[in-house]
Amino acid sequence: MKIASEAHPVEIRAKIREGAFNRPTAGLAPGYVQANLVILRKPYAFDFLLFCQRNPKPCPILEVLEPGVYLTHFVSDGADVRTDIPRYNIYRNGILEDSVSSIGDLWENNFVTFLLGCSFSFEEALLKNDIPVRHIEEGRNVPMFKTTIPVNSAGIFKGRLVVTMRPIPEELVIRAIQITTRYAMVHGAPVHIGSPGSIGIVDLTRPDYGDAVTIREGEVPIFWACGVTPQAVLEEARPDLVITHTPGHMLIGDIKNESLAIL
Amino acid sequence: MKIASEAHPVEIRAKIREGAFNRPTAGLAPGYVQANLVILRKPYAFDFLLFCQRNPKPCPILEVLEPGVYLTHFVSDGADVRTDIPRYNIYRNGILEDSVSSIGDLWENNFVTFLLGCSFSFEEALLKNDIPVRHIEEGRNVPMFKTTIPVNSAGIFKGRLVVTMRPIPEELVIRAIQITTRYAMVHGAPVHIGSPGSIGIVDLTRPDYGDAVTIREGEVPIFWACGVTPQAVLEEARPDLVITHTPGHMLIGDIKNESLAIL
Repeated sequence: MKIASEAHPVEIRAKIREGAFNRPTAGLAPGYVQANLVILRKPYAFDFLLFCQRNPKPCPILEVLEPGVYLTHFVSDGADVRTDIPRYNIYRNGILEDSVSSIGDLWENNFVTFLLGCSFSFEEALLKNDIPVRHIEEGRNVPMFKTTIPVNSAGIFKGRLVVTMRPIPEELVIRAIQITTRYAMVHGAPVHIGSPGSIGIVDLTRPDYGDAVTIREGEVPIFWACGVTPQAVLEEARPDLVITHTPGHMLIGDIKNESLAIL
Repeated sequence: MKIASEAHPVEIRAKIREGAFNRPTAGLAPGYVQANLVILRKPYAFDFLLFCQRNPKPCPILEVLEPGVYLTHFVSDGADVRTDIPRYNIYRNGILEDSVSSIGDLWENNFVTFLLGCSFSFEEALLKNDIPVRHIEEGRNVPMFKTTIPVNSAGIFKGRLVVTMRPIPEELVIRAIQITTRYAMVHGAPVHIGSPGSIGIVDLTRPDYGDAVTIREGEVPIFWACGVTPQAVLEEARPDLVITHTPGHMLIGDIKNESLAIL
């Protein structure tokens, strides 16, 4: 089933809940926030919340629900995290075990839900400012790279930062930094500009996740903290159970991206 | 013992650790951050961290230490939260039981330490911009008021916002809002300007905490979220044990206030 891109988030979530839409959410409900999902059992929740607090760029917290709570309050008024996401990944002991369209039958009273910001929000701001976003132009997934930049560990959660790369024309680099700085709750300012080698990236044509994109003459590679970082960290930490959204299949909220701008 | 106001935070903390200084820290180490302290046992830590995450204006998190850890890492490199604060309040079941100069003998491996931002940081920025801060001019404690504004609850932690009030000349109000907006990690932008009645304050000459200050003709009362909010919430929630700094007796860190500015 197709969803009109101008449909309101409430309508889109209703379709998803009915099972009538199970595809990636890119391009839907322009202007509205989309969120990454992480669900853990309560014994891991303090450490993961602390991990996010210590690493706000890769793990910008939009909302955390209390143990057993499955209805959102801030990101939207009453989205159901068990059913309102098009597709979920189930990891047991760090291994991807299943990919499902609802987690209602798996739900436990000690599940703690984390909703984290997503780069869709700042890409929209870049485009509004006529700053090109190459992977969107080329119809690809954003290129993502493992780096040598350590994240701040918390309990069992530790590892290295994963970044996204967007090539930006030299004359637009400063403006791109300014714009994304405004969106601190959705990854915010870049973590690095220029030489990939400085942060341990060997070859920009071979991303660790996503697709390579064209870098043109006169363009500078700019690197932003990536929401795949917590997934990589979680796979490494191997808690007994982790449920995430399937990449690209986000929770669509009722708040506007603009409401997350810091100024 | 007197400490020169230009002494470095490392020297000041050494004096405090030796027991050679036990007075309020206002005016010490200008330019460096000062932090509020809250220590709770581990069973309360997730809910309190969530409470802070949901209420960033009254509870701006500078650093949270893992259970049992007493040396800071971010606010300063190795300040000891058991000894490096001039005075501590010990609350049991919500009742202030004791006020001590060290908590080394009380320390438990399940203590979780929270360091929260303090308005000293943004007052410095106001003064640098020639915006008067009346309670400093008048040598008083800042006036603080209970409001009817509900905070976002988390677990057992709930209640109403406490605010500080500073009268600002009408022509400087916009600039004062701009400046404090930059310091989101230390209470940030005001929560209200103008009519005290709109937020449930009956009489500006009778603060709930601190001292009344003069409001001159042509000045507007401006209200900021206050770090007393978490103390009020903790007293209400009555966890078995809470240790805080004694008001005004802060942890002096090694990072500059300016490093906390968002732009």
